[in-house]
Amino acid sequence: MAALLSDLATEILIPVAAVVGIAFALVQWVLVSRVKLSPEKQSAGGNKNGYGDYLIEEEEGLNDHNVVVKCAEIQSAISEGATSFLFTEYQYVGIFMVIFAVLIFLFLGSVEGFSTKSQPCTYSKDTTCKPALANALFSTVSFLLGAITSLFSGFLGMKIATYANARTTLEARKGVGKAFITAFRSGAVMGFLLAANGLLVLYITINLFKLYYGEDWEGLFESITGYGLGGSSMALFGRVGGGIYTKAADVGADLVGKVERNIPEDDPRNPAVIADNVGDNVGDIAGMGSDLFGSYAESSCAALVVASISSFGINHDLTGMCYPLLISSVGIVVCLVTTLFATDFFEIKSVKEIEPALKKQLIISTVLMTIGIAIVSWIGLPAKFTIYSFGSQKEVANWQLFFCVAIGLWAGLVIGFVTEYYTSNAYSPVQDVADSCRTGAATNVIFGLALGYKSVIIPIFAIAVSIFVSFSLAAMYGIAVAALGMLSTIATGLAIDAYGPISDNAGGIAEMAGMSHRIRERTDALDAAGNTTAAIGKGFAIGSAALVSLALFGAFVSRAGISTVDVLTPKVFIGLLVGAMLPYWFSAMTMKSVGSAALKMVEEVRRQFNTIPGLMEGTTKPDYATCVKISTDASIKEMIPPGALVMLTPLIVGTLFGVETLSGVLAGALVSGVQIAISASNTGGAWDNAKKYIEAGATEHARTLGPKGSDCHKAAVIGDTIGDPLKDTSGPSLNILIKLMAVESLVFAPFFATHGGIIFKYL
Amino acid sequence: MAALLSDLATEILIPVAAVVGIAFALVQWVLVSRVKLSPEKQSAGGNKNGYGDYLIEEEEGLNDHNVVVKCAEIQSAISEGATSFLFTEYQYVGIFMVIFAVLIFLFLGSVEGFSTKSQPCTYSKDTTCKPALANALFSTVSFLLGAITSLFSGFLGMKIATYANARTTLEARKGVGKAFITAFRSGAVMGFLLAANGLLVLYITINLFKLYYGEDWEGLFESITGYGLGGSSMALFGRVGGGIYTKAADVGADLVGKVERNIPEDDPRNPAVIADNVGDNVGDIAGMGSDLFGSYAESSCAALVVASISSFGINHDLTGMCYPLLISSVGIVVCLVTTLFATDFFEIKSVKEIEPALKKQLIISTVLMTIGIAIVSWIGLPAKFTIYSFGSQKEVANWQLFFCVAIGLWAGLVIGFVTEYYTSNAYSPVQDVADSCRTGAATNVIFGLALGYKSVIIPIFAIAVSIFVSFSLAAMYGIAVAALGMLSTIATGLAIDAYGPISDNAGGIAEMAGMSHRIRERTDALDAAGNTTAAIGKGFAIGSAALVSLALFGAFVSRAGISTVDVLTPKVFIGLLVGAMLPYWFSAMTMKSVGSAALKMVEEVRRQFNTIPGLMEGTTKPDYATCVKISTDASIKEMIPPGALVMLTPLIVGTLFGVETLSGVLAGALVSGVQIAISASNTGGAWDNAKKYIEAGATEHARTLGPKGSDCHKAAVIGDTIGDPLKDTSGPSLNILIKLMAVESLVFAPFFATHGGIIFKYL
Repeated sequence: MAALLSDLATEILIPVAAVVGIAFALVQWVLVSRVKLSPEKQSAGGNKNGYGDYLIEEEEGLNDHNVVVKCAEIQSAISEGATSFLFTEYQYVGIFMVIFAVLIFLFLGSVEGFSTKSQPCTYSKDTTCKPALANALFSTVSFLLGAITSLFSGFLGMKIATYANARTTLEARKGVGKAFITAFRSGAVMGFLLAANGLLVLYITINLFKLYYGEDWEGLFESITGYGLGGSSMALFGRVGGGIYTKAADVGADLVGKVERNIPEDDPRNPAVIADNVGDNVGDIAGMGSDLFGSYAESSCAALVVASISSFGINHDLTGMCYPLLISSVGIVVCLVTTLFATDFFEIKSVKEIEPALKKQLIISTVLMTIGIAIVSWIGLPAKFTIYSFGSQKEVANWQLFFCVAIGLWAGLVIGFVTEYYTSNAYSPVQDVADSCRTGAATNVIFGLALGYKSVIIPIFAIAVSIFVSFSLAAMYGIAVAALGMLSTIATGLAIDAYGPISDNAGGIAEMAGMSHRIRERTDALDAAGNTTAAIGKGFAIGSAALVSLALFGAFVSRAGISTVDVLTPKVFIGLLVGAMLPYWFSAMTMKSVGSAALKMVEEVRRQFNTIPGLMEGTTKPDYATCVKISTDASIKEMIPPGALVMLTPLIVGTLFGVETLSGVLAGALVSGVQIAISASNTGGAWDNAKKYIEAGATEHARTLGPKGSDCHKAAVIGDTIGDPLKDTSGPSLNILIKLMAVESLVFAPFFATHGGIIFKYL
Repeated sequence: MAALLSDLATEILIPVAAVVGIAFALVQWVLVSRVKLSPEKQSAGGNKNGYGDYLIEEEEGLNDHNVVVKCAEIQSAISEGATSFLFTEYQYVGIFMVIFAVLIFLFLGSVEGFSTKSQPCTYSKDTTCKPALANALFSTVSFLLGAITSLFSGFLGMKIATYANARTTLEARKGVGKAFITAFRSGAVMGFLLAANGLLVLYITINLFKLYYGEDWEGLFESITGYGLGGSSMALFGRVGGGIYTKAADVGADLVGKVERNIPEDDPRNPAVIADNVGDNVGDIAGMGSDLFGSYAESSCAALVVASISSFGINHDLTGMCYPLLISSVGIVVCLVTTLFATDFFEIKSVKEIEPALKKQLIISTVLMTIGIAIVSWIGLPAKFTIYSFGSQKEVANWQLFFCVAIGLWAGLVIGFVTEYYTSNAYSPVQDVADSCRTGAATNVIFGLALGYKSVIIPIFAIAVSIFVSFSLAAMYGIAVAALGMLSTIATGLAIDAYGPISDNAGGIAEMAGMSHRIRERTDALDAAGNTTAAIGKGFAIGSAALVSLALFGAFVSRAGISTVDVLTPKVFIGLLVGAMLPYWFSAMTMKSVGSAALKMVEEVRRQFNTIPGLMEGTTKPDYATCVKISTDASIKEMIPPGALVMLTPLIVGTLFGVETLSGVLAGALVSGVQIAISASNTGGAWDNAKKYIEAGATEHARTLGPKGSDCHKAAVIGDTIGDPLKDTSGPSLNILIKLMAVESLVFAPFFATHGGIIFKYL
């Protein structure tokens, strides 16, 4: 029984899809770059750059040379700040990565005492596999490749975003529709580059490794798991470092600017304003890019490693083996079509249409992808095959696997909509939170926390149902492909996600360049929709992280050779308890870091306002560089302890307490971390939009709470500020915590299984 | 091999200890009642009521008739409010209890189809046990007994506290030492009555049930578990209802009084002030009393039911069987001696000595109890015996059991000290939080949340070590007795705990009676120490709840006849995930309830201030009754949904999904709930004390942040208000959530094992 798709077709299809994705990204880039940032050309061809014929809103200040020059200046300041921060960050992380790579090599090499002898395979007993030393070496290489790809993904995203932000501002002069298209196209550049690049590198790596491994697919795909570990390790530092950077600057800027000095957000007089805008790019863009790339890499690796010990791997069925990659390939094509709906098939004509347009993206991509999955499952899989399930092989039909992938995909949509319901100010939950500001900041915080807790319920049920169905149908492989299903529309997801911070920056640039209030209103409308989509993106990230880490956990358990993880044994239970504590420990570190860095920022901003004459009047420029430095130093310094906690825990627990306790830790961290991550990001999103609800004053109710500067609004700003580290630092980093510990355990599993549990051995 | 202690001696010792405890409580009551609340006698014998000869501080206003009259009036208003609320609450809860009792009877009766035939025992196969119908009936009876005892415990505590509060105020005129002794003695009345009463009722119930059960100890102790369920069910409603009551009133009173009107706490002009003081008694006193009684009852039941299927039960070794009760008996005696250290052996001479005196209570009771445990383990246990451990019997030595109990006891002390470190303003964590108020409420909240998360780390390790050691030594029985060890000094713990709200009320009465600033300072000092001890008490409650529910979980698993709970099966894993979500769902409900009720309260208080002329000037009395009604109505209405969530979850999960999923739910709720409970109560405690730190201005640093009314102080008040529902409503209720679900599962285990898992059966 073989798949309908021939091996050769598979080998061609995957790279072609990746290349198409990259090409599409480049086309989008070219389209964005048509918006000129140099004033000469701009004034000459201003309203003839391809869109002039269907302008729908009043154009403003198109011929103002100074504005364009200013925008270009601010853009380059932000871009330079972001580049310089990322380079500094990468230096530190680079050292760490090298050390960790050495550790991987030593730990895995020691499994068979650095022997270079081939050995019988673990699962296909009658064949010979490559030596453990080779696996150690190739795991190290794939780890480094994953890290570099992740780094590259984040950096590229940042470059695109800082390239697009001022262009979005300039387009906003022509109307909200134009600005939307520019921001969204730029997001798409990032989304497609990341998805296609991740797929391509993985595909090439597998093929290169195969040159050495030959028929030893067990070893081959074990080594490939290093790719996921590398991607996620990089993502951890990106998320935590970037998260601390952005929120230190944001909180610091807001606390003095908005609360004390009563000047608008992004006012150029605020010394922390450049740092704040840099932060959006290094945190929300580069950090998120690395994060989602990590999820993608890990879910692919988890699926591949389970497949390699199932009938696909044992029978060397290449097409079946590449099913996860085929899903991703189809995903790129589906997302490509979906993107056209936003940029070409329809057109945004007013502010109200932005959020529906973004939501439509999610729905369209999900529906199309369902068809795509059906096709891939039909032609890419044999009608029947067996899947490894904790020591035994389970028979699975191709339509069952279709359900696994599809349920993951649709669970993602459910999570997305629930997140929207709880964080968009169009619905009652956020309006209730805004209403509670009547009685001050305290009730606002109480209601916001309660909202976050409540928003966990449905997503958890959605994840639980996905797990149950996909596990029942195809064991751990089912869960891995369910995760992949949720991530299959990653290009669209990332485009929507990246669109938010780009719009946010565009608004900042408009404010700083002194453009009219009208322009700012347009970018604000883009940004408000971006807030909700950011929360949705985080919902996806968390949901997929839960599935991914469960799949990795399953792969780890298989690889470590344990067939039950019994809660009723003390070893496992204490692991579970301590594991459930880790997200709290981690959040305590990251939140405290943001708090401390923000305190320093506040003091510096206050100092500048108090000591620089003419600053408040706008006659003198503030010292932006010092604020940038404070954020940089704080984030570099503060990302180490939480990073070390996550990276070292599996090593310490596995080595000292063994694989059973480590299993408990992974399960505990997973079930506890998911809840905190969802509630933190939704609480933060709700506070942010409750504030925006009061500011916008779009309804009768909202107007009774406002206007800006009222007591209610002040209470709402406090909530928003508290939410910043929750939604942009500690919450999203928790995804990585649960995924990374799982993938790390998977990579080190052979070592733990051989040498781990020292304490119990000697007790 | 029998224990050194004869069965007859055991049968005498236990009730004697209980009676001694009750007698001691009565003596304390008599001593407290010597403080006269009627002005005639007071003025006549004012400084001759037994202490007159060693006064150490300046006496104030001892002969002011009016003050005494006023105090008596306020006290009776508080007492009436509390009594009326509790009666209303008990009516609703009563209905619920009757319905639930019927459910228990029907569910358990249906196990063998309501057959009245005797059946072979489950564990001692060769003997005959009573019919399932009898177990259903006796479980129902013991459920009701547990509920009534719990109700009685809470009510009694409230009565004592409202009896003592005004007396503490009056004693505060003579100095802080006198006031301390009165408050502490009153706490001791509650502590000893509860501990002794719980033991006595349990002992009598066992002996009465034995008349029917005879040699069928299996059935006997299975039925007895109903006692724990009853105690905890009552506690759930007491904690949640009381918690919502007290915090709605407190938050409402503070938001208008302190923040908007700038009048002091407990100012008689505040319409919510009586409701606030009533709340302390129904929430912190009655709720906590029920809660700790529940823990005590459950840990005893868990230990007894495991013992009944171990060699003690199989060989009908009465002394060994009663080991848990012997531990509690010795605990009463140890606490009696410990109390004398606070009230008679030493004397408080200044404010600074209060906190050390309370801490000394913890240390002394722990040290003495360790000796007590050693003695009981030596004479009350055979040198070797076997313990049931998931399908097999494990041999255990008596000294091993000593270690189990002792490690629980000492882990409690560690948790207590860590809690103190994180919540007392004598140490840097709270001072850092206070310092973060410089930059406003937002940073205060961020730092406070981070502190709470961080404070989880060491307690979790302490619990994990206790679990590991006691489980390794004596399986689930070890964990049950470790819990019992932690709770063995419950009389002292409760005395310390109850002392706090009594002092709080005393301060309120002083303020309302218009007594001098000096008196208020003295009661404030008592109250500040009470805040820390309250947090410590909550730490104990949570730690013991974790151990208790694990023990109950183990007993449930044994009784349901499953020997492994494998995380790698989807049934268990989704249970784990959903279980970990339940504390969030529950917290969302309770926090939102407090928030909504507080909003209503705020509106009513504002309305009164705005519409009642002369209220602010103090010439007109506010309408206290309406505020009391708002709190009452809100708490009665709002306690139903969270109560139903907790009570129904095990029934629904067990019936529909079966015992394996239910095991997952219990484990998930346990490992996740413990973290939220600890962090919530410590965050709340820290905010409260950060505010008090700024208010007291005792150090140079504190003075730079103050004084009252400064921006820093306002930010601190916001934190304190947010912390109120966290530390007094949702946090402590979570203990009950995890315990109650476990004990309920245990009671219903035979039903679930026979008829449960409907969905999977038909899938």
